[in-house]
Amino acid sequence: MTPADPDFEARVRRSFEKQRVMRTLGVLLGRVAPGEVELTLPFREDLSQQHGFLHAGVVTTVADSAAGYAALTLMPPGAAVLSIEFKVNLLAPAKGEAIVARGRVVKAGRTVSVVHADVFARDGSEEKLVSTLVGTMMVVQERPGLVD
Amino acid sequence: MTPADPDFEARVRRSFEKQRVMRTLGVLLGRVAPGEVELTLPFREDLSQQHGFLHAGVVTTVADSAAGYAALTLMPPGAAVLSIEFKVNLLAPAKGEAIVARGRVVKAGRTVSVVHADVFARDGSEEKLVSTLVGTMMVVQERPGLVD
Amino acid sequence: MTPADPDFEARVRRSFEKQRVMRTLGVLLGRVAPGEVELTLPFREDLSQQHGFLHAGVVTTVADSAAGYAALTLMPPGAAVLSIEFKVNLLAPAKGEAIVARGRVVKAGRTVSVVHADVFARDGSEEKLVSTLVGTMMVVQERPGLVD
Amino acid sequence: MTPADPDFEARVRRSFEKQRVMRTLGVLLGRVAPGEVELTLPFREDLSQQHGFLHAGVVTTVADSAAGYAALTLMPPGAAVLSIEFKVNLLAPAKGEAIVARGRVVKAGRTVSVVHADVFARDGSEEKLVSTLVGTMMVVQERPGLVD
Repeated sequence: MTPADPDFEARVRRSFEKQRVMRTLGVLLGRVAPGEVELTLPFREDLSQQHGFLHAGVVTTVADSAAGYAALTLMPPGAAVLSIEFKVNLLAPAKGEAIVARGRVVKAGRTVSVVHADVFARDGSEEKLVSTLVGTMMVVQERPGLVD
Repeated sequence: MTPADPDFEARVRRSFEKQRVMRTLGVLLGRVAPGEVELTLPFREDLSQQHGFLHAGVVTTVADSAAGYAALTLMPPGAAVLSIEFKVNLLAPAKGEAIVARGRVVKAGRTVSVVHADVFARDGSEEKLVSTLVGTMMVVQERPGLVD
Repeated sequence: MTPADPDFEARVRRSFEKQRVMRTLGVLLGRVAPGEVELTLPFREDLSQQHGFLHAGVVTTVADSAAGYAALTLMPPGAAVLSIEFKVNLLAPAKGEAIVARGRVVKAGRTVSVVHADVFARDGSEEKLVSTLVGTMMVVQERPGLVD
Repeated sequence: MTPADPDFEARVRRSFEKQRVMRTLGVLLGRVAPGEVELTLPFREDLSQQHGFLHAGVVTTVADSAAGYAALTLMPPGAAVLSIEFKVNLLAPAKGEAIVARGRVVKAGRTVSVVHADVFARDGSEEKLVSTLVGTMMVVQERPGLVD
């Protein structure tokens, strides 16, 4: 997969800085490669559901951003990315030290891209798959009020 | 739809209190009826994505909880609810004063229930549909380590 | 919902005639209204899965076409409709005399539309919800090789 | 992945024979391995949609069966498999000589299993990914009226 924008990594990092929810939740941006982005969220009790695990919506927040930024790495300069839909399967409780979401592009299109993200719970050196997301991202042009 | 547990409302409210992420995000529990639950999240800039709208994952967090608690209203005493999957379509930017998620049960089963949630952006007296979720909730028995 | 093409009904009926799989399976086109289409498939044993019910994929075929044609009713002349994704929940076995799929548009967009279809099993005068589909349809321009 | 039933392959093949829709459409059962099943459908014009490609519902029928049988390979004797939901993304037109669906188990559970299927269009020695399915399969006990 060849990025249309040689500056793709800096662009993803700039956009990530503007996703204020990432800072609020404490999500960290890791690896950025063509068609692939990794995000990590260290476990926080105040993001848990009633059984003490990370809430499925929080897991989804991280997975959606990882998948969306994976799509953005392949988009041309001036394009912004919008999630239009995603589906999440929850395989195991999200617990441990952190969750790691690895987003990747399944198919990059001119108008829409199909993306995938696997989310792992990390505990020490072990990783366990806890969730999987498949979604569709749309390419939109940056415009006033929708600045990437 | 007839609740199997006459105490269903108090049970939902107790469980909601334990979803720490709800307090962290500022989500409010509204109407609780058999097969239906409404949640509201007043807009917060620190939960936004890169274009200033509420992040799709935050919208999903509220929608998933509304749908899950709708399912819980119909479950027998001693049962807990787990999301096993959901799909979210994002129709319009989540902006305005608040989002309101209305969860309802489409089909209540012995083992799994199918649920739906519509999420509206509220601005003054207007509401606009911004997102829709369809998911599957599983009935699990409360047990040590998984207390409802 | 106002159709952009006053000729929308004839257009849907012409396109339906070209979906050869509809004839092969025996699907009948019923009501066509702005944003709404109904299809019926009389039960056939040779479309069943291993337990004697209609196969989930056959149910999906009818649901997807109902939803897609619902979207087409609102599209401008010269546009064709393509499914880009859908999610199906299966609530009950598809058995009885026929299944009836009612597609409707949840949100019509310039590039993509979000659609819904409910599928009912009909037996005598009774109808039971057996399946629900939520999907995304894309507007594409007719072109040689992709004739609507 | 270890099959709970040493007779898993014969069991899948027997069940496949009972899926009458498979014979009606002309689907062929290929490789059966623990957690994996491959199905092939040679192209047929009478299963096409309005643009001459295989209808998305037909693609889904093959993908759902491949994924469901992949789940069945890991289930204990006496268990039957039911699809409870799936989501399909359509990446490219399903055309060529045949489509090949490869189902595999992502996570095998006691009550529900998460499955995946990729569908490829085959033309000569080339394969192109045209569709991807993620779904949930439920383990049910065989019973009169629901014989696996």
